[in-house]
Amino acid sequence: MRQRCIAALREVFASFGFVPIDTPTLEYQDVLLGAEAAAGKGDDAHETQKQLYAFEDNGGRAVALRFDLTVPFARYASVRRQDLPRPFNRYQIGKVFRGENAQRGRYREFIQCDFDIVGADNPYADATIVLVMNRALEAAEQTARDALGLPSHDVKPRYRIHISHRGIMNALLERAGCRDRATAVLRIMDKLRKIPRAAVLDELAAHMSREAAEELAAACAPPQDAEQKPFAALEKLRGLIGSSEEGEAACARLEAVARIAQSCCRAARVVIDPSIMRGLDYYTGFVCESFALGAEDMGSVCSGGRYNNLAERFGSKELEGVGASVGLDRLLAVFETTIGSLGAASPRASSHTLLYGQTPACAEAAFLLLSALHQQNISAEVFSAHEGQGLKHVFKYAEKIGAKFLIIIGETELSKNAVTLKNLEARAQLDCIPLTKAIEQIGLWTKQ
Amino acid sequence: MRQRCIAALREVFASFGFVPIDTPTLEYQDVLLGAEAAAGKGDDAHETQKQLYAFEDNGGRAVALRFDLTVPFARYASVRRQDLPRPFNRYQIGKVFRGENAQRGRYREFIQCDFDIVGADNPYADATIVLVMNRALEAAEQTARDALGLPSHDVKPRYRIHISHRGIMNALLERAGCRDRATAVLRIMDKLRKIPRAAVLDELAAHMSREAAEELAAACAPPQDAEQKPFAALEKLRGLIGSSEEGEAACARLEAVARIAQSCCRAARVVIDPSIMRGLDYYTGFVCESFALGAEDMGSVCSGGRYNNLAERFGSKELEGVGASVGLDRLLAVFETTIGSLGAASPRASSHTLLYGQTPACAEAAFLLLSALHQQNISAEVFSAHEGQGLKHVFKYAEKIGAKFLIIIGETELSKNAVTLKNLEARAQLDCIPLTKAIEQIGLWTKQ
Repeated sequence: MRQRCIAALREVFASFGFVPIDTPTLEYQDVLLGAEAAAGKGDDAHETQKQLYAFEDNGGRAVALRFDLTVPFARYASVRRQDLPRPFNRYQIGKVFRGENAQRGRYREFIQCDFDIVGADNPYADATIVLVMNRALEAAEQTARDALGLPSHDVKPRYRIHISHRGIMNALLERAGCRDRATAVLRIMDKLRKIPRAAVLDELAAHMSREAAEELAAACAPPQDAEQKPFAALEKLRGLIGSSEEGEAACARLEAVARIAQSCCRAARVVIDPSIMRGLDYYTGFVCESFALGAEDMGSVCSGGRYNNLAERFGSKELEGVGASVGLDRLLAVFETTIGSLGAASPRASSHTLLYGQTPACAEAAFLLLSALHQQNISAEVFSAHEGQGLKHVFKYAEKIGAKFLIIIGETELSKNAVTLKNLEARAQLDCIPLTKAIEQIGLWTKQ
Repeated sequence: MRQRCIAALREVFASFGFVPIDTPTLEYQDVLLGAEAAAGKGDDAHETQKQLYAFEDNGGRAVALRFDLTVPFARYASVRRQDLPRPFNRYQIGKVFRGENAQRGRYREFIQCDFDIVGADNPYADATIVLVMNRALEAAEQTARDALGLPSHDVKPRYRIHISHRGIMNALLERAGCRDRATAVLRIMDKLRKIPRAAVLDELAAHMSREAAEELAAACAPPQDAEQKPFAALEKLRGLIGSSEEGEAACARLEAVARIAQSCCRAARVVIDPSIMRGLDYYTGFVCESFALGAEDMGSVCSGGRYNNLAERFGSKELEGVGASVGLDRLLAVFETTIGSLGAASPRASSHTLLYGQTPACAEAAFLLLSALHQQNISAEVFSAHEGQGLKHVFKYAEKIGAKFLIIIGETELSKNAVTLKNLEARAQLDCIPLTKAIEQIGLWTKQ
C-alpha cells in the first residue's frame, strides 16, 4: 500500500511540474549539522545531533545518515543555484534516519515525501504548496480506497489544512513584550492543546504580565467558526497587531494565500489558525499543518512552511524556499481509522490472472500467452508448479496470492488452441474458449 | 530519468504478479554477514566486511547499512515462511551501500532493483525470471526513448541474455579433476575474456593436466553461433558431461528454461553460454547475465540466478530461490551509448503547461484553471512571479523548465472568461479562447 500511495504522490507532484531529485543517504556530518555543530560547538543542533546516526567511513571521514530531506536539499539547491530555474519545483521521496527509541508512528528509519519551491517568495508559491497538499491527500486516500475495492468518496472535504504565518506570531510576541524569549514562550504555548489553559497561563506569567498572557492565549486559540467565516481570524489578528509592520505584512500574505487555497482546494478545507507553531526553528513565513477529519488527534499528516534562511549555511543568502512533507506512515495509520484495515488490500492488481499448464508442453503454451495478457494490462503469472502438484495446489496458491482469474491449459485445450477460464470469486467457468475471448471476458468481469 | 525507469520497472514486475516489499536499510551486522563473520571469524565474508558501512548505534548495537537486497530478503522470507505463499514473487527497489572507492559505474550508494521467486525449484520459476528480465530491459529502454521523444524501436532484439547452470560447471570441474579447487579455478577461468587464452591455460595447468585445461577452456568458450543454433552448445556439453548425473540434470533444466525463454522473449535473444560464472558463491543452479547489443563491453545490465541455500543462515534449509537484479545505473550508462544523451530529456511531461496571470486577480483565476488541466492529464503550474516580473521572465522560466505551452490570463481574458494559449515550440498562439478549447488544442498539439 505504501508503494501505491508513493506512486500516487509522484503523479500529483509531477502534475504540478515538480521534478524528482535524489540526494545521498550518507552525507558528511558537517553538511547535516552545520560545520560548528559537527565540531561539537553550538547548542541548536544538540537535539538533532543526539538523533543522528553518525560514524566514520572506511576512509576516516565523519559521515552520517540524513535525518531529513530538507537540509540536504538546501545544500543541493545552493550548490546548483546558477543552473536551476527560478523558481525551482522539486520533490523527493526517500528514507531518513533518526536514532531515537521507536514508538507508535515513530520509526528509526522512515520515508519522507517532500515537495518544495525554491527561488520564489510570494503568495503564489505558498498557495501552490497548499494546493499540492490538498491533491496529495486526496490522491493517497483514493489509492487506499481503490486498493480496498471501496467506491470513490463523495466530494465532501475530509481534511483541514491550518495555515498561519510566523510574522503574526512574532508580532504577537512583540506586543506581549517577550520576543527575545520566543523559543521558551512558544514551547509553553505549544502545550495549549495538551494541558489546561490555566496551567499554560501560569507558565506564561513567568515571561509577561497576566494580561498579556491572556491576550496571547486568546489570539492563538484554535479557530471555532473558521470554516464558516474563513477570514474572521484574520480580522481579529489585524485588530491586535495591525500597528506592527511585520504583522501587517504577514496578514496580507496570509490573506492572499488563503484566498487562492480556499477557492481551489476540494478535498481539504483551509482555515487560518495562528496556533500553528511548527516546531522547527527554520520557518520564516507561511506555515501549515493538515489533519484528517475524525482523526485530528493522530496529528498532522502533512506539514510545512516557508524557510528563507535555510541555505545560508551553504553560503546562499537569498535562496527563498517553501515546502511541505507528507507524513506517509502516519497517513496510512490514519487511513486505518478513517477507511478501514489496509491489511485487507490485495497487493496484486484486481485483474490478476494465474496461468496453469497441466503438462510441461501445456506450461510452455501458458508462457506464450503471458505477453498477450500483459499487453492488455492484465497482470498474469504462470504457476511454478513442482512436479506432480495438481489443481489442488493451484487453487490454494491462487487464493493465497489473491488471484482473481485462473486460466487452465490441459491437453484438450492445447489441442484446440484454447484455454479454460475460471472466475475464482464468482466461481464461474468457461471451457475451451479462444484466448481473445478469455481476455475480453476478464475485462468484462473486472469492470463489474 | 532514473525515477521514470524505476516506475517502468515497477509496472513490469507488477504485471508478472511480483509484489513490492521493503526491508530496513540499517540491519544488525550479524544479519548481513552471518553470525560468525560478524564476530570476526571466517574468511568468506571478508570481502563483504571490508566494503560494509558498519558502526554502533546509539544503544551500542553493531549495525550496518545493507550491501545488497538479497541477504535481507533471504532473512525476510525465512522469518515469514509460514505466512508467505509458495512460490512467493517479490520485487524490491532500494539503495544499497558499499564502502569502496567510487569509480565509473560504481558508487558508494546505488539503487538495486531485485526480483525473486522463492519457494519453487523448477524450470518455470527460472524461465519467469528470464521473461521478466526481457520485459524489464525492453520497458526501461522504451521509457528512455519516450523521454527523448524518439520513436519506438523496431522489434529486433537489442539484448542478449546468457544463461547457464552451475551444475554444468561443477560437472566440467569434476571431469577436469579439480572440483575441490573450484574457487581458484573459476577465478582463473573468469580471465578468459580479459587476457590471452594461452596465459589462462598456463595458470590452469597448476591445477590440472594440460589436456584437461584445454578441454575446460574449450567447453567454456563463449558461444559463436549460439543464436543460429541455440541448442548446439547444450549438445556439446552433453557430450562432455553426459555421464555425470549432476551434469545431465543441469543440462535438462537448462534446456527446459531455454525452450520457454527463447520462444517468449522479444527484446532479447537468449543463448546458452557455459562461460557465465557469476562471481557470487551463493548460486546453486541456473545463472544468467544480460548484455545490450553494441555495448557488451559495459558489462551485464541484469544478472542473477538460483540460490537454494541462501536462507540456511537463517535456519530455513529448504527455501529455494531464484532471482535477478537490474543494474539500473549501468543500464542508464548503456542507454547513453545506445540511444543518446539522457541529459537532453526534459524532466517534465510533454504537455507541461505554464499558467501566468498578469495581475493578482488574474493569478487567482489561473489557479482555478489548474485542476481542470490536471483532470485532463495535462501537467500544469502557475508561474510564481515576483512583483513586477513581466512576460520576459515568464518566457525565460518556461524555456528553462521545458514547458511546452503557456496560458496567459490578462485583464482582457479575465473579463471574457477566456485564456490566451501559446505553443512555445511551434510559436503558435490562440487569443482569448475558452479553456475547454485550449485543453482540446493542447491535446491535439501533444499528439502531433
